[in-house]
Parts: sequence; C-alpha cells; structure tokens
Amino acid sequence: MKKVKVVQSVLKANATVAESNRQRLASAGCVAVNLMSAPGSGKTTLLERTLMRLAGETPCAVLVGDLQTTRDADRLYAFSDHVTQINTGRGCHLDAAQVAAGLDTIDLPRGGFVFIENVGNMVCPAAFDLGETHRVVLLSTPEGDDKVAKYPTLFQAADAVLLTKTDLIDVLGFERRQVLEDLAHVNSSAPLLELAVRKNVGLSQWLAWLHEQRAALQTLLTEQTSAYQTGMSPVTS
Amino acid sequence: MKKVKVVQSVLKANATVAESNRQRLASAGCVAVNLMSAPGSGKTTLLERTLMRLAGETPCAVLVGDLQTTRDADRLYAFSDHVTQINTGRGCHLDAAQVAAGLDTIDLPRGGFVFIENVGNMVCPAAFDLGETHRVVLLSTPEGDDKVAKYPTLFQAADAVLLTKTDLIDVLGFERRQVLEDLAHVNSSAPLLELAVRKNVGLSQWLAWLHEQRAALQTLLTEQTSAYQTGMSPVTS
Repeated sequence: MKKVKVVQSVLKANATVAESNRQRLASAGCVAVNLMSAPGSGKTTLLERTLMRLAGETPCAVLVGDLQTTRDADRLYAFSDHVTQINTGRGCHLDAAQVAAGLDTIDLPRGGFVFIENVGNMVCPAAFDLGETHRVVLLSTPEGDDKVAKYPTLFQAADAVLLTKTDLIDVLGFERRQVLEDLAHVNSSAPLLELAVRKNVGLSQWLAWLHEQRAALQTLLTEQTSAYQTGMSPVTS
Repeated sequence: MKKVKVVQSVLKANATVAESNRQRLASAGCVAVNLMSAPGSGKTTLLERTLMRLAGETPCAVLVGDLQTTRDADRLYAFSDHVTQINTGRGCHLDAAQVAAGLDTIDLPRGGFVFIENVGNMVCPAAFDLGETHRVVLLSTPEGDDKVAKYPTLFQAADAVLLTKTDLIDVLGFERRQVLEDLAHVNSSAPLLELAVRKNVGLSQWLAWLHEQRAALQTLLTEQTSAYQTGMSPVTS
C-alpha cells in the first residue's frame, strides 16, 4: 500500500505544478504541444520541419526531453534559437516540474507555439500532465499496426495522432485499417494525420491543424477577457 | 528523500526475487534470455522464427510481457504450447515477481531456453533484474542510428545487441558505423548481430549465439557439480 500512496502523491504534486504551467502558458496565449511516442518515431525530424515552416511567421520555442544527450536539441538549434534541453537522467518521462524549469529558461512565444518533445516511451509519459494545451502522439509505421491496441493509455489522451513514415507502408505490410479500427475503440475524437516528413508529405495538413488549435485558443482567451470585463465569471477549463 | 527510499526498496526487493529466479532456472539448466527494446523493434517476430527453428530440437518456453493485450502471446502460441502472457496493466516493465509467477505456470524446459519478452520500452526495463541469464537488446534500423547514445543504460547491460530490420537500411539512410562507435563507448563486449528476420537473414548467426550460451552454461553447471562432488566450494556467480 505504501508504494501506491507514494505514486499517488507524486502524481498529485505533478498535477499542481502542471496547473501552474497551464496558467502561465495561457496568460501568454501559447499553444503548448506535448509530443509523445516510442523512440525513433520521428519527433525531432517533425519538429525540424515544423520550425522551418513556421520561421518568421509564428513565434515558437521548444523544450526537449532526453535521458542524457543533447543530440535532439543540437539538431533543433539549427532551426530556432529558442530550444532548451531537459535531461531526465534515468527518468523515463518528463514531469511538470521539469517543464516549469524549462519554461523559466525561455521567453514565452506570445500567441505562438511551445513544443515539448517528451522522452521516447509509449508508457510512462501518458501518466504525467505537463500543463500542455494539446497532446500529440506519433506512431511510425515500422513499429507495427498493433500499437494502438497495445498502448491504449497513450492514445486515449491524444488530441491528434500522427501516423509517420507512411512512405514505408508498402515495404512493411502495415495495415492502416487496423490502426483506424483500434483508434475508434480508444479515442474516436482525435484526427489521424498521415505524414512522411522527410518527403514533405502531410506537413501542410499538420500545420493547418496547429493553426486551427491556435485560432481556437485565441478565440477562447478573447471570450474570457470579454466575459471578465463585462463582470461575468471567467471561463476556466 | 522519501521517494528515493521507496525506489531503492523496490529495487532491493526485486533483486531478492531475481536471485531466487536465477537459482531456479540454473537448477533446471535453462538459458533465460530477457529480450528488451523499443515497441515495434521485432521481438515477437524474432521469437516466432526462433521457436520455429528450435522446435523438436531444443525445449523452449516463453513469458511475454504486455500492458493489457494477449496479441503477442497469441502469435507465439502458433509455434509453442509453452507460452505464458504476463499483463503488467500500466506497468512499463516486467519485474522479478511477475517472472516468478510466470515460471510457476510452465514446466521449465530442462537444458533449454526460457525467452522473456519484456514490455516495449528502452528505459525502465533496464533497471529491473529478472533473474535472467542473458540480456539481449534489439535495435531496429527505423528507430535511427542515434539510439545507443540516447539510451546507454539499456545497451550497457546487454550480452548481445541485435540490429533488426537491416533490409530497410538503404531506404532509411541509417549509419551502421554510428551504432558501432556508440556501442564501443558503452559496451565493447556485446556482439552486434545483424538481422532481417522476415527475410530469414541473420537467423543462423542468432541461433548459433544462443547455442553457444547454452553450451557455456552446461559446461559451467558440470564444473560446479564436479567441484561440489570433489568437496570444493560450488562456484556461484
């Protein structure tokens, strides 16, 4: 019983810090996207291309979680000055306190995007709220079409699922239909976007999704401000 | 401080059960292989082919760790009657107590192999001794050539590293050299075996490695018995 209590208290403490991160991000009008997936599904490559496409148009910052190297952050520095590496040591996921410390190191990109690249792991990151506004889960085709059923908790909480490396589908014998069927059981509201990032396939669809989330957040924040100014209670989610 | 203490006591309790598993496996002369990797690197496919090749020749049993489905065990049942599913719920790795419970459900394959397919995860399984005799880590080429450097703890403890899906190397721009360089830093003694399992490439080399480990264990156990019979202290590792 002791173990359970400690786990619960860790999650409770995390939730408090996550809520504070959420307020902080909302006050700057930032869409904060927590990217989660197995190792090697293409999170960093997606971010490289995303930063390249958003450069000069929408302000962005990136927090990158990794056990001990700075390899992903080094790759992303080529595309943005606003990249912070969070090394978790042996920690298998990011937590809200690490993200809070990461946010301290950057100027929040007002009205733009904060991308949080989680540690490559399909289990533990799902349990830790970071205070993000959106959760995006990547599934690369070489991992196999059974992964939604095998790691349902991760997919349940996703706001969008990205099927990556779709250019390999024909070589692999991957069944898209299986993913769609399993996803219908665990999460019927998250859209499935298909990408082959290195071949620039699907990037426009992904950027359109990002901009939709940003527009929706701006609308929500405007409504809250206007409700507050007219004396109504502010809407909190 | 409390959190650290609990983690330490969990690992200490695990080590005690792992030692008991190890004695139990040794007394039956079993080579017990703990297979670890990211999700979708090909553990189950490798086991399917391995069981097929060893059928009627060497006794085998399999314990399969998964969060909640029986998909991998179902696949392996086609090749062996001695397959036990261990569902970990939200647990991101197998532990020694789960393996002990799994061993209770099978007749130990005397002088043969017990394969333990861990939960797909490159972080947490590395910290938990299961009482295995050998640790084998799979790295599939689509995951990228940077994974040894990014997840060193997993590779440090490996007795062999299997580079899988090598038939995709040319499509991916994967650098074998990078893996070898990083491996030389973290673990210079583990051999790197290259496999494209679905194309039957590298399987003979993998089976030869397995048989070498089995022969070495038999020699060690014979020496221990003979030392014991002549009144010397038994060798324990």
